[in-house]
Amino acid sequence: MAQFIAMNHFKVNPERASEFEEHWRKRETYLHEVPGFLRFALLRSDEPGAYVSHSSWASREAFEAWTESEAFRKAHAQARTPEGVLAGPPRLERWEAVLEQENG
Amino acid sequence: MAQFIAMNHFKVNPERASEFEEHWRKRETYLHEVPGFLRFALLRSDEPGAYVSHSSWASREAFEAWTESEAFRKAHAQARTPEGVLAGPPRLERWEAVLEQENG
Repeated sequence: MAQFIAMNHFKVNPERASEFEEHWRKRETYLHEVPGFLRFALLRSDEPGAYVSHSSWASREAFEAWTESEAFRKAHAQARTPEGVLAGPPRLERWEAVLEQENG
Repeated sequence: MAQFIAMNHFKVNPERASEFEEHWRKRETYLHEVPGFLRFALLRSDEPGAYVSHSSWASREAFEAWTESEAFRKAHAQARTPEGVLAGPPRLERWEAVLEQENG
């Protein structure tokens, strides 16, 4: 189960949304090689232009270690989001699990 | 993998946070019996008083069906959060997965 979830919120110009998604589809995350990484999703809100890159971790320490890792550097050294796609800077939220339940 | 995530955001008076968590610990979710339910977590932000009830679903339809189900009614018929714990009404966000990746 995930003890820690990081959510990076993006505000995208709604008419550039498909370009933003395409940019992420082509991106290599390098997350498969990261200790403590559990799962990743790019989420699209019902609110036009709102997206979140959502990653789940075995611990906060695993997430923080990733942000200082070579895998992180490689993932973020790729081509930047094209000019004008983002309507503002991303906003990172850090969340800790208080309670958890899985189906089955 | 989760195709749909519902996040219900709570703003809690920070001095009542432990009471809020205790209320959730004692609550029966009835989620184990719900088709399409994958996982649930109560998340606590680094920002004092911010919480989210975070549920992952096989589809948006599974989530919407749950909100009209007997399991939902039973879960929400339990004792309300004690007076003064919440600093405002909850705010529901609906998110769809565009991309997903699991470890391994």
